[in-house]
Amino acid sequence: MFEAAELGRQLTKAQYEAALAKLRPALLEAHFALRDTKVPVIVIVSGADGAGKGEVVHRLNEWLDPRGVDTQAFWQTSDEERERPRYWRFWRSLPARGRIGILFGSWYSEPIIRRVYGELKTSQLDTEMDRVAFFEKMLVDDGAVIVKLWFHLSKQAQRHRLEELESNPKTHGRVLPSDWKHFKLYDKFTEVSERALRRTDSGHAPWHLIEAKDRRYRELTAGQILLQAIEARLRELKQLKPAPAAAKVAKPPARRGQAGVTILDHVNLAQRLTDKEYGTQLEKWQGRLTRLAWTAWEKQVASVAVFEGWDAAGKGSAIRRVTAAMDPRLYRIVPVAAPTDEERAQHYLWRFWRHLPRAGMATIFDRSWYGRVLVERVEGFAREDEWRRAFLEINDFEEQLAESGIVVSKFWIHLGKEEQLRRFREREEINFKRYKITAEDWRNREKWDAYKAAVNDMVAHTSTSFAPWTLVAGNDKKFARVQIVKTLCKHLEAVL
Amino acid sequence: MFEAAELGRQLTKAQYEAALAKLRPALLEAHFALRDTKVPVIVIVSGADGAGKGEVVHRLNEWLDPRGVDTQAFWQTSDEERERPRYWRFWRSLPARGRIGILFGSWYSEPIIRRVYGELKTSQLDTEMDRVAFFEKMLVDDGAVIVKLWFHLSKQAQRHRLEELESNPKTHGRVLPSDWKHFKLYDKFTEVSERALRRTDSGHAPWHLIEAKDRRYRELTAGQILLQAIEARLRELKQLKPAPAAAKVAKPPARRGQAGVTILDHVNLAQRLTDKEYGTQLEKWQGRLTRLAWTAWEKQVASVAVFEGWDAAGKGSAIRRVTAAMDPRLYRIVPVAAPTDEERAQHYLWRFWRHLPRAGMATIFDRSWYGRVLVERVEGFAREDEWRRAFLEINDFEEQLAESGIVVSKFWIHLGKEEQLRRFREREEINFKRYKITAEDWRNREKWDAYKAAVNDMVAHTSTSFAPWTLVAGNDKKFARVQIVKTLCKHLEAVL
Repeated sequence: MFEAAELGRQLTKAQYEAALAKLRPALLEAHFALRDTKVPVIVIVSGADGAGKGEVVHRLNEWLDPRGVDTQAFWQTSDEERERPRYWRFWRSLPARGRIGILFGSWYSEPIIRRVYGELKTSQLDTEMDRVAFFEKMLVDDGAVIVKLWFHLSKQAQRHRLEELESNPKTHGRVLPSDWKHFKLYDKFTEVSERALRRTDSGHAPWHLIEAKDRRYRELTAGQILLQAIEARLRELKQLKPAPAAAKVAKPPARRGQAGVTILDHVNLAQRLTDKEYGTQLEKWQGRLTRLAWTAWEKQVASVAVFEGWDAAGKGSAIRRVTAAMDPRLYRIVPVAAPTDEERAQHYLWRFWRHLPRAGMATIFDRSWYGRVLVERVEGFAREDEWRRAFLEINDFEEQLAESGIVVSKFWIHLGKEEQLRRFREREEINFKRYKITAEDWRNREKWDAYKAAVNDMVAHTSTSFAPWTLVAGNDKKFARVQIVKTLCKHLEAVL
Repeated sequence: MFEAAELGRQLTKAQYEAALAKLRPALLEAHFALRDTKVPVIVIVSGADGAGKGEVVHRLNEWLDPRGVDTQAFWQTSDEERERPRYWRFWRSLPARGRIGILFGSWYSEPIIRRVYGELKTSQLDTEMDRVAFFEKMLVDDGAVIVKLWFHLSKQAQRHRLEELESNPKTHGRVLPSDWKHFKLYDKFTEVSERALRRTDSGHAPWHLIEAKDRRYRELTAGQILLQAIEARLRELKQLKPAPAAAKVAKPPARRGQAGVTILDHVNLAQRLTDKEYGTQLEKWQGRLTRLAWTAWEKQVASVAVFEGWDAAGKGSAIRRVTAAMDPRLYRIVPVAAPTDEERAQHYLWRFWRHLPRAGMATIFDRSWYGRVLVERVEGFAREDEWRRAFLEINDFEEQLAESGIVVSKFWIHLGKEEQLRRFREREEINFKRYKITAEDWRNREKWDAYKAAVNDMVAHTSTSFAPWTLVAGNDKKFARVQIVKTLCKHLEAVL
């Protein structure tokens, strides 16, 4: 989940100022239009220590009309609050209709911290998060817009940030002893936060992960997300002109330089294997997979492997290298194309549930339920509320697989845009490969950036401890195949 | 919750046949119209052993077009099912769009039984029910209609039913040994079921409690609820003419005789006290309340008392008898009338949260959050989805109060319709009481039956172990006052 927020996104001063010059008047205008509506906007500012959350709160206050904003920091509890049910303090801090409430800390903070310190069990954290989800649902049903911002710092960035603050006499005092104490618990904090975020990442109140290392990037991104959320609601209420048709296509916000980076840009596509290395390594890992598949059968451990990737990324040939190592009685390949009539008459997850493996078996999905947040999102086949909701639905689905003991592996085979072009041309030229390239492939290619943004969001929302994404470096097919077979072995070995 | 389904509702053969003659063609027509939609209808048949669930399933199959119905009994698990995640068997049993799926047993059965037998902890039951709620939400988001029927038998009725079945040679074999075993756990089963139902009683998939003692009543009611649910969706989809204006007013379905009975009809309004009894008893219980209020202060136990009831039922004077016994520093009365501007700018529960008592104090609500499911429902100020959703929202609210240690008491002061008329006339005649009677009171009186049905639903959905309703016999004001002060004492004594 958090890997998508550790990419080194940053803005130069010039980029920041140019973007800000557009953002500020738009924010004010939206804020002004909001007053005439019955919509309260709740902004939740949460995340890692030292991620600059306080500065973001300052900045939002600066950019918005102060008369329409209520900022509330949840810090020390008053005796008035302690003597009442826990949510009393949250209820009293809710913004009225037409206003924006910025909550610095929120209903998330206490349960997460208490779980990190072992005062709550995992099941209790889950119960708390289900209550949070219910509370937010109730507010949204009542017309509220909830904007949830999570500011993330990598472990290294957090250490760096604390050291930096401490070494400067001016900011030395801002590092609390508890900050270093929390830092020691970084891994636990990350694990607990991921669980809390996942269970509350609903379609009606989705989480936005913001990479927090660069001040300009985090502040501007927070402002842009807030603006988009308000504008979207105003459009629904017809208080704003509809977005131009171009904006309806899921298009990443125009970002330049380092700010527009996605997790795919961090895949090292230069990785390659020589023919000799390939031969040795493939044989080694395929041999291991053969044995593991039989062990899984003996121990009745099922597994599910999901293959997604760019057109011409080599999904099919990678799958063949996997199945070559497995007894045909032990696996089934499910190619996912347009749904059948029977499948169309059901919930979109139904067609995947029906193909789940029995104990000891494996199902390989050639494309999968991720179509919902990839092609259906980008092509507009699913409405925004539908694909946003899908993150939580998919996580719940995969959690059920994991709970029942199924080993889940998910691969996105990445490819350079030029390498894709080369392969497309090659396919057109080679007679027996010509069937593999269609007009649709060329059309999809035009939406490369939109797909990239969708993949980034997909990884941010659905790469979980129990079902992590593996991003495969696919420019060299040999390298990709070995990486995949090896990853499957590692995942199986972890449980067998 | 279940007290509203132990009222002895029944139908004569003639009543049943007359109603059925209308129901069957309507059901078939609705079923036929459903085919052209994308709506799957999921009917969940759950409840007590021996409640005739199997017969209801038979009957529904008989009344519907069999080509459009899939009936699924969740009984023994196949090895195919055991080897897959738990929900696999539920996914495979979901009806396709345009069809009706009748689930005999469902995702509720196993968690409830396992909790009754102590295999699950309460927190695990809650987690299971939250998963169920999420699953149902996902299906409803996808367009499904979920009709959840819970067939209830009182303990006595269940015993009677099992004995009856056993004594008849023809049906002897239908009593399983496990039925008697379950009967011994009746109280536990009821407690666990209440909790499970409460947590899943959502606006989009509400529970319907059906009194199951009388075969004709339970079967006809099941059919009527199913019909209404399908028709409501067809109307939304404009596949059916809109309901006549008259039906828009929340009006109880025309039921005659014992079938139309509500929980209010079971309040014994003949209960009275002589002046002498009143004097002695009021003094006794007021004295006890005085001491208890101080003990609550010392132990920092807060309490909330809710007063609802018919116009002229004597809420005000009853509250005065309560407060007369308490030190003015210890309580606050919150009269609930039209919301203020500030309150209107918030969620409807906000105005009640703000008035919650501090530790050791009491808040008395003269009318309350139940307005949502009473006047707002009957007058059409809240849409059906809004007031249906409110049951879960209110239960969650009161559960939070109870969890934080607040003692919650809720009174509905009942009154005979003639007694109300007598009081209205009296008020008009006595000069200083004239301000107490308005045209609105007379208008409300015309909706007596609609309010009665709303009160019945309110008790069925919100009388919980932690915040039970007390129905007060209000024809005699003296009796009512003593009953109220005494109940408050009992509730406080239970925790102090």
